[in-house]
Amino acid sequence: MFSLMQRASRGDDVYEEDASVRALEQYVAELAGHDAALFCASGTMSNQLAFRASLLQPPASILCDTRSHVYRYEAGGIAALSQATVYAAQALANNGHHLTVQDIARDFVVDDRDVHMAPTRLISLENTLDGAVMPLQEMQAIAAFARSNNVRLHLDGARLWNATVAQGCSLKDFTKECDSVSLCLSKGLGAPIGSMLVGNKALIQKARHFRKMMGGGWRQAGGLAAVAQWCIENVWPTMQETHDLAAYLAKGLVQHGAKLSVPVETNMVFLDLAGTGVQLSEFSTQLEAEEGIKIGSKEAPRDQTQVRLVLHYQISKEAIDRLLAAFGVMAAKARSNSSNGVNPTPNSPGGRSAYNSK
Amino acid sequence: MFSLMQRASRGDDVYEEDASVRALEQYVAELAGHDAALFCASGTMSNQLAFRASLLQPPASILCDTRSHVYRYEAGGIAALSQATVYAAQALANNGHHLTVQDIARDFVVDDRDVHMAPTRLISLENTLDGAVMPLQEMQAIAAFARSNNVRLHLDGARLWNATVAQGCSLKDFTKECDSVSLCLSKGLGAPIGSMLVGNKALIQKARHFRKMMGGGWRQAGGLAAVAQWCIENVWPTMQETHDLAAYLAKGLVQHGAKLSVPVETNMVFLDLAGTGVQLSEFSTQLEAEEGIKIGSKEAPRDQTQVRLVLHYQISKEAIDRLLAAFGVMAAKARSNSSNGVNPTPNSPGGRSAYNSK
Amino acid sequence: MFSLMQRASRGDDVYEEDASVRALEQYVAELAGHDAALFCASGTMSNQLAFRASLLQPPASILCDTRSHVYRYEAGGIAALSQATVYAAQALANNGHHLTVQDIARDFVVDDRDVHMAPTRLISLENTLDGAVMPLQEMQAIAAFARSNNVRLHLDGARLWNATVAQGCSLKDFTKECDSVSLCLSKGLGAPIGSMLVGNKALIQKARHFRKMMGGGWRQAGGLAAVAQWCIENVWPTMQETHDLAAYLAKGLVQHGAKLSVPVETNMVFLDLAGTGVQLSEFSTQLEAEEGIKIGSKEAPRDQTQVRLVLHYQISKEAIDRLLAAFGVMAAKARSNSSNGVNPTPNSPGGRSAYNSK
Amino acid sequence: MFSLMQRASRGDDVYEEDASVRALEQYVAELAGHDAALFCASGTMSNQLAFRASLLQPPASILCDTRSHVYRYEAGGIAALSQATVYAAQALANNGHHLTVQDIARDFVVDDRDVHMAPTRLISLENTLDGAVMPLQEMQAIAAFARSNNVRLHLDGARLWNATVAQGCSLKDFTKECDSVSLCLSKGLGAPIGSMLVGNKALIQKARHFRKMMGGGWRQAGGLAAVAQWCIENVWPTMQETHDLAAYLAKGLVQHGAKLSVPVETNMVFLDLAGTGVQLSEFSTQLEAEEGIKIGSKEAPRDQTQVRLVLHYQISKEAIDRLLAAFGVMAAKARSNSSNGVNPTPNSPGGRSAYNSK
Repeated sequence: MFSLMQRASRGDDVYEEDASVRALEQYVAELAGHDAALFCASGTMSNQLAFRASLLQPPASILCDTRSHVYRYEAGGIAALSQATVYAAQALANNGHHLTVQDIARDFVVDDRDVHMAPTRLISLENTLDGAVMPLQEMQAIAAFARSNNVRLHLDGARLWNATVAQGCSLKDFTKECDSVSLCLSKGLGAPIGSMLVGNKALIQKARHFRKMMGGGWRQAGGLAAVAQWCIENVWPTMQETHDLAAYLAKGLVQHGAKLSVPVETNMVFLDLAGTGVQLSEFSTQLEAEEGIKIGSKEAPRDQTQVRLVLHYQISKEAIDRLLAAFGVMAAKARSNSSNGVNPTPNSPGGRSAYNSK
Repeated sequence: MFSLMQRASRGDDVYEEDASVRALEQYVAELAGHDAALFCASGTMSNQLAFRASLLQPPASILCDTRSHVYRYEAGGIAALSQATVYAAQALANNGHHLTVQDIARDFVVDDRDVHMAPTRLISLENTLDGAVMPLQEMQAIAAFARSNNVRLHLDGARLWNATVAQGCSLKDFTKECDSVSLCLSKGLGAPIGSMLVGNKALIQKARHFRKMMGGGWRQAGGLAAVAQWCIENVWPTMQETHDLAAYLAKGLVQHGAKLSVPVETNMVFLDLAGTGVQLSEFSTQLEAEEGIKIGSKEAPRDQTQVRLVLHYQISKEAIDRLLAAFGVMAAKARSNSSNGVNPTPNSPGGRSAYNSK
Repeated sequence: MFSLMQRASRGDDVYEEDASVRALEQYVAELAGHDAALFCASGTMSNQLAFRASLLQPPASILCDTRSHVYRYEAGGIAALSQATVYAAQALANNGHHLTVQDIARDFVVDDRDVHMAPTRLISLENTLDGAVMPLQEMQAIAAFARSNNVRLHLDGARLWNATVAQGCSLKDFTKECDSVSLCLSKGLGAPIGSMLVGNKALIQKARHFRKMMGGGWRQAGGLAAVAQWCIENVWPTMQETHDLAAYLAKGLVQHGAKLSVPVETNMVFLDLAGTGVQLSEFSTQLEAEEGIKIGSKEAPRDQTQVRLVLHYQISKEAIDRLLAAFGVMAAKARSNSSNGVNPTPNSPGGRSAYNSK
Repeated sequence: MFSLMQRASRGDDVYEEDASVRALEQYVAELAGHDAALFCASGTMSNQLAFRASLLQPPASILCDTRSHVYRYEAGGIAALSQATVYAAQALANNGHHLTVQDIARDFVVDDRDVHMAPTRLISLENTLDGAVMPLQEMQAIAAFARSNNVRLHLDGARLWNATVAQGCSLKDFTKECDSVSLCLSKGLGAPIGSMLVGNKALIQKARHFRKMMGGGWRQAGGLAAVAQWCIENVWPTMQETHDLAAYLAKGLVQHGAKLSVPVETNMVFLDLAGTGVQLSEFSTQLEAEEGIKIGSKEAPRDQTQVRLVLHYQISKEAIDRLLAAFGVMAAKARSNSSNGVNPTPNSPGGRSAYNSK
């Protein structure tokens, strides 16, 4: 990676003069079937710029899943930056797996000139959401609904790379349905920094203006862009292996008594350890000390039994096997002590649980 | 009323120089057990000024009932004017009658310095909400929760006058629990224009500054203030009679086959006419033509069967009797035709239905 | 006036159901040669609604005279409500009398897609400004500049009624040059409360939506509207007499040693009393006590020698004569004492002085 | 640099887990004599976060030089992000060299509870501004004024490194006078990306929260931080040489007939070429083609004669000599043609000229 950085261009991206950044932006725009793209410092920046650039005046509202990252984990940016209200829909049709067009229609606010209302101006989807894939067909139905109601459709595609692999679709299949899409370069792809926003030229030009206003205009970003492009080209094709490994990990933990909170469809494993008797924080501490594996729950409270495990392309099957073995030992020990009266803490129903801010 | 106006003072309220306005503000502040009050042009102004004056910087969120007027029917002002996110709670504990402290605790966002979050800074209640009274005890429990979590408590008391009558409490019993309260002078009280915001001196001073910024600083408002004070003194004491009349109306319509959507606790009657076979728009049109009574649903769509009827102090028992008689005739006719296959339209679950924006 | 109020309609203006309000709106729209008008609670509301309804997204800036009421005396509403930057122009061409098209061109920010800039989207004029009339020809030149640069032109016409009289023009002559105009009904016209915003239908519809959001949607405003219309029809035609009286007052005070700060063109007299030796606060106190005339400077600091006197249609020549006589006595006394070493305090150059917030 | 990046830590800075970033933040905080620092993507981000984190509610205004970068070249962020009005002061006392405390006092808006006003809550300085140094003594006087009026003092110190060298002071001498300071790591220091914000712990914590909201929370920023720290340690000490070279360049161009627009105090040279007869765009094009030196004015319009030249530590004396020689040849040729009737274009008086957005 560092040799890539060294070879990257060193122009000033504020003035759109950096060759590596421009190459990345053109590459991703084409992948996504859109006119233009903007290299941003984070997924939050891509999402918030999409909203800010898409919305004109208040009164306006955005309609999204009540668990959306943009609503729950972006520090209230929709209200603070875009002055927009959020009306949050619940995924009632399929037990919370993903929003359907019916869920959206239920909370849609029509612009009928009633001065009491903040009409829906944009629908924001997220795919994957907590690792669950919104099927392409559902996205197409929602896109048709958005078009027929003359509102924008945004997709928080921080983990869309995973959805494409899980569905066996191209990126374009999903992104061409939307007016704007954010795509993270870190997370599943493994780049150190960055996220792409794609859309038409006017939207991206507007987003570039807002990016400058919010201080996201960076100077010599060429090195970061070169690395990010490498990750798309080289890490994305390996994603199925990571998904398989996640399924393998989940299966192993279930055999030790854990319960899957949601099915494993991509690289995220949501489990409840209540049935295993294993203390999450103890397990995490011991795993790091003895096996050198960090799962990041060392400060979990004693009564937390739910855990999210996210895999990436640098995690080997061997590491998973060591984790499973270590877990097996602890679970056996817990069973032999009959004192495993831990109570599961239910998720907050309003959103994702606290350990889950992407 | 007009002679009251004629005798009122004619100072400039922007400079706090109008005697009638100052008298009203002092009178209501004392009634509410607060330091100060501000005479505003509408309930929306009182509510939005309370939020804007209470909240300091983003990131901040307001927690309220998902059906709240401040969230659903004030044109997204919370986001646009105060830059605050709304996290909306559902009244799960008592089948939607009113929020409980448990409902609030579930969606409360703690300020634990996590940069992903917009912490709850203010809880906003509404009493009555759709005519339903939040019991004083519940408000006290929520107020204790707000204090212990160091957040503000606002009350949209547009119809609090009715709640005091229904509960047999003083205004102060409710208002002293809150940091800020809005109280409508139109609606139940019958004044032509206005709403009061009450709170401590610093809050009201800040609200006065924002009122000027938003253009709500009016000049010779003395006449309006004088009339409003008369309404508090003279209409409020008659409210029980209006509540009794609402119950009488509801009972009569139920006898003709209507179904109460919510129990009648104050002056609002929510009904479903599906079982009566009566067309809402036809009934409304005929009632106005033949009896001179307006109920305001002449433009209701054919398949709308739900209706909200709101009574005020100028409505006589005789008018109600005429309405009931006319309804009885139509219902009888509908029964005799067997072709009454109207399908009820369910309320939008996200908020109150469209006919119900206060 | 009160009998007018009594005869006015009592509909709900939030639902556009009040006949007197609709009549006033239509009357003023026609006077101004625009499609539509909106009855607002204050000039600040009309101005701020015009900005908020005209501007779409940031980055945007408004260009106005550095002394403008909208910039200096509306509590920073442009930034807080419309998120717009102000770039303030100085009236350099004619020694501060009024902005010229050259003054405006100097500070105009072109939209050339440079992401560093907040392009000018709206030019806001004020006529009269401190009683000084911007000639119709200048307004026409600025309007042509605005059109050719594809930006909006707003006019803060709180005192435009006076300008029409001073220039012998119709209201339409000025207002048809602009995209939006605010016109105060209090101030020179003498109505108790209110201001009109005029513009095309889309703008007024948008302003109506924002008016509701900011809480300016009032219910039974018919009485206020009826009185306001009477004032336009009856007070406006008498304005020349008030202007003559202002000139008469100015001349008299100059004869006693006062110095005009700006020429008297309408109903406002700006004077420096330094040369007269009269203490402003003493004069004001004595005038009220002995002649029953209030000029509102009783709390002026000892070293303040500048004063603004504003006349309205209810002020008689006899009152002016009493004022002049009283002033003459005090000035004579001051001259006889040779101890009149009062230092004038210069105006703040950044804006109008503090006593001058309309 | 790239080996530095390779050795840098790879933690997630959103969770404050990156060692290199934390080291940089601590290092700069100590240099500046403040409690804490935040590593940001740009100077605009540092400045706008400082305002957003310092200001609580509107109505609020910021007072700054009318030429300030924060007012003129940050896309109106002060209004759009912080809802604050700007009142811009003119540097009248010393012919535009720098603001004095008298200049500031003239436009300061006192918070006297007048509801018409947006009181000054923060004074924002810039040092250097267009390469001109605000002397330490003046900054101290302004800081004392800010403290005595209970408002915040921010310093846009994008080029403060140069000011310390020019004044022979420590960084702390300047920064300890201020509540918040932004310091660019690119520009004079030569790092690829970044700017530091320094202040007390509460301010930086708040800024971190806003940084996340605006999408400036980046993940593996360790490499960028390591390089930036190297630049402070290694480039800053060489700055005097760059300043000397700038003076040498200016002297050479003046000998060929150019006129200095402002004295050269640091690394920026502002010139008017009108007297030399040399076409800026032609010179720039030829310089790049024949000498491989880019000065970035190839697209300058034909009538532009003013130019800004900014030097950095990688520019050699040899390159300057080649530039001077080339300029000398062109100037001689221009003199021999007597047809050099180019008219200089005056700077826009409102701000810096367009070529000068940092």
